[in-house]
Amino acid sequence: MLTQAKSKRNWKPIIKEFEAVIGKKGVVRRKEELLTYECDGLPSYRQRPALVVLPRTTEQVAAAVKLCDRYNIPWVARGAGTGLSGGALPVEDCVLIVTALMKRILDVDLDNQRIVVQPGVINNWVTQAVSGAGFYYAPDPSSQIICSIGGNVAENSGGVHCLKYGVTTNHVLGLKLVVPDGSIVDVGGTIPEMPGYDLTGLFVGSEGTLGIATEITLKILKTPESICVVLADFTSIEAAGAAVADIIGAGIIPAGMEMMDNLSINAVEDVVATGCYPRDAGAILLVELDGLEVEVSTNKKRVTQLCQQNGARTITTASDPETRLKLWKGRKAAFAAAGHLSPDYFVQDGVIPRTQLAQVLKDVEALSEKYGYRIANVFHAGDGNLHPLILYDESIPGAFEQVEELGGEILRLCVNAGGSISGEHGIGADKNCFMPDMFSEADLETMKWINQVFNPKGLANPGKVFPTPRTCGEAANAQKSVQFKDVERF
Amino acid sequence: MLTQAKSKRNWKPIIKEFEAVIGKKGVVRRKEELLTYECDGLPSYRQRPALVVLPRTTEQVAAAVKLCDRYNIPWVARGAGTGLSGGALPVEDCVLIVTALMKRILDVDLDNQRIVVQPGVINNWVTQAVSGAGFYYAPDPSSQIICSIGGNVAENSGGVHCLKYGVTTNHVLGLKLVVPDGSIVDVGGTIPEMPGYDLTGLFVGSEGTLGIATEITLKILKTPESICVVLADFTSIEAAGAAVADIIGAGIIPAGMEMMDNLSINAVEDVVATGCYPRDAGAILLVELDGLEVEVSTNKKRVTQLCQQNGARTITTASDPETRLKLWKGRKAAFAAAGHLSPDYFVQDGVIPRTQLAQVLKDVEALSEKYGYRIANVFHAGDGNLHPLILYDESIPGAFEQVEELGGEILRLCVNAGGSISGEHGIGADKNCFMPDMFSEADLETMKWINQVFNPKGLANPGKVFPTPRTCGEAANAQKSVQFKDVERF
Repeated sequence: MLTQAKSKRNWKPIIKEFEAVIGKKGVVRRKEELLTYECDGLPSYRQRPALVVLPRTTEQVAAAVKLCDRYNIPWVARGAGTGLSGGALPVEDCVLIVTALMKRILDVDLDNQRIVVQPGVINNWVTQAVSGAGFYYAPDPSSQIICSIGGNVAENSGGVHCLKYGVTTNHVLGLKLVVPDGSIVDVGGTIPEMPGYDLTGLFVGSEGTLGIATEITLKILKTPESICVVLADFTSIEAAGAAVADIIGAGIIPAGMEMMDNLSINAVEDVVATGCYPRDAGAILLVELDGLEVEVSTNKKRVTQLCQQNGARTITTASDPETRLKLWKGRKAAFAAAGHLSPDYFVQDGVIPRTQLAQVLKDVEALSEKYGYRIANVFHAGDGNLHPLILYDESIPGAFEQVEELGGEILRLCVNAGGSISGEHGIGADKNCFMPDMFSEADLETMKWINQVFNPKGLANPGKVFPTPRTCGEAANAQKSVQFKDVERF
Repeated sequence: MLTQAKSKRNWKPIIKEFEAVIGKKGVVRRKEELLTYECDGLPSYRQRPALVVLPRTTEQVAAAVKLCDRYNIPWVARGAGTGLSGGALPVEDCVLIVTALMKRILDVDLDNQRIVVQPGVINNWVTQAVSGAGFYYAPDPSSQIICSIGGNVAENSGGVHCLKYGVTTNHVLGLKLVVPDGSIVDVGGTIPEMPGYDLTGLFVGSEGTLGIATEITLKILKTPESICVVLADFTSIEAAGAAVADIIGAGIIPAGMEMMDNLSINAVEDVVATGCYPRDAGAILLVELDGLEVEVSTNKKRVTQLCQQNGARTITTASDPETRLKLWKGRKAAFAAAGHLSPDYFVQDGVIPRTQLAQVLKDVEALSEKYGYRIANVFHAGDGNLHPLILYDESIPGAFEQVEELGGEILRLCVNAGGSISGEHGIGADKNCFMPDMFSEADLETMKWINQVFNPKGLANPGKVFPTPRTCGEAANAQKSVQFKDVERF
């Protein structure tokens, strides 16, 4: 819901100053133009920013952040705005710093397998820039054709191929940062072995609360010689889950291993009609194998055998790019297809230890029945990253609140199973209330120490990651006891 | 050199308090017993601690740290004392907190491929605890039979197999920490996808300046189906270096890829007489391949071919454990063998981009001639991590100072080539003067922010990692400008 109070600040002279450092074209102030920026990929929260600025250089970002610091204006960084946890949700009377125009690839060094990009570069462009030379960039969120590297860094994004290759943090070598006082800092470097504290790792996944990355040095990998996709269908989720456990247990590390349940299968067949996913299957498993041809071919046999041992009814494999794409098509369209099952859907993102898969999915089913909402399950099965899609109709009063509550119960299932409240979508404005479920007061306070030194005035992305009394009803009491004593910036 | 000023502190009642929380047996105070603790694996710096305590539990560590906090006593954590950068070097009138008695394996979870250990557990024991079930722990410093996991975490240790599998930080899932005010904090968890700031990554490699890890959750990996070692000998380092570039360029990621030059080869043949390393070779290359049998066998052929294309004279391969061990024996003994070439040697640890290998080695040779000291080169060639061993005689007045200067020049070569002043040994007390060569004032100041919030009184391992006027002659001026303004702990 959008609430918009009248600003108490005299913006006119401040806007002039922003225009002076960024240029008139880089400053958006008209109400109708600001509409676009009221939310990111989590549209259930909305807030209009006072001003949007679109810098093109590190220096312009630094100048904008300095102005915010001078006038004590809260600010929020935004990449492509595809985030699913409200990490780029504006706060009242804030400046939104949008990196969408910072889309230059600054350097490509194939010999040392690295590339330097501005934060507005789209994820997919990185691979496109180096694929001709036989390289690619591994992290591949579902939104990879529209999401930006800056946002990926902020949210430590994952993707289908992160089972084998790790999430964004494993692929960032160094960063040029603008920290909240407007100074420019370099962290990490161009090689993985950098001495001193690992500030690169600290910054990746900090969701815009510690600063803005304006140059990002990424690792690129050699394109594998061979890729094969194995599609297996099972009569039950339990059987598919057992196959997952056996594949990992055998020491095979697929590039990706995805599962979809019956409801998801039917949703995607309704919408994209792949014809590959049997509508009566309890679950399908998509296993992508990559590496040397001999390795892939051996693993294909092993995976096929392990799936069969766990009751797979049919197994389809594909090695040529066209058929592989066909097998993946339904999975890639799963979120969009959920929109066809129901007027609205709510994507949850939680992690459980792989060994708890069957039990947690049973518990999710029980919650689905208890609340009376259908839940389609799509997930990165290899690393236990669940994406339950709760189907509902927002026009029914109270439905969203119920779905939020149901989503929360699913997260608590994950935490109780020894997992996490977020696998790859981040905490943002959406899940900060759940942080006390995962972390003790002392643990959260330690994270806040870090926030305080980088962000002593609290201007950088306020209200995100950490629970706040304003946003979290039930977490408010826990929050009170971990409030900061006064701190001076040194 | 050991300098020992008389303590101005009245230790007697304080010792009583330490004995009360740790037990009399866990407190070492007699001068002759303290001798052992005057230095770690870098014996050129020595300092006797006022007191050594040997806790057995997290609570005892917390109690010891709290006592230090209460009485403003500087303290230094020490694991097995094998570190090569003086990270565990005591400071004057300090308490040394030694984790050697914390050697319990607390939990093994094979299904989820993780193990929880106390910090005093020896690196090798982790693999021994799980190898029967077909798992192993990947990071393998040369000292793995004596170094402890706590020290590995502090120094973010590497090893031969880190080319493919990454250094310690890539294998730590979570930590229980005692931070410098004595509170106990949990960071990370039991799965890789944890929300919030990555404090685990921040802590690994922080060299005892942010606290002590008292429980460490590590990833364990499945033992590969097949392992093969390829030994190739070349007439020159350049030819071996070109082979390394071609192997990596072909997309092969060996488990390890090590190079030794002629001087090292002769040193190890003198001492362990492997008979495998031709004494007239300019360089040998040891390439370990692991994975599926078909994969290893294919890669063995490719590596052999690439070595031959670069002029390898002979190629030996070994797949059975016994012969593999024989091929590795010389490399494993390289540091010890250097001790037979010369009364003393100084191991340097620097990193360069792989593409600069040939040029930097030429420059190292030129420095060797300029200073008149022989340098044996042993290195992790795959990731550009050099270990030049400078041979000298400490009994000759001025020799050590000259060798230190030569070592410093080698580090500057690494930095100028776009590399790093430490690959895996850490900064400690030995290299903090070189930090300004790698980092700008703003970058170092940002790291210091982190130190200040965890370690506001500066009691935890003072004088390490960051340049200090006391230890660094020429870095003193740079240091002055990045000193902290006063900060209050919040």
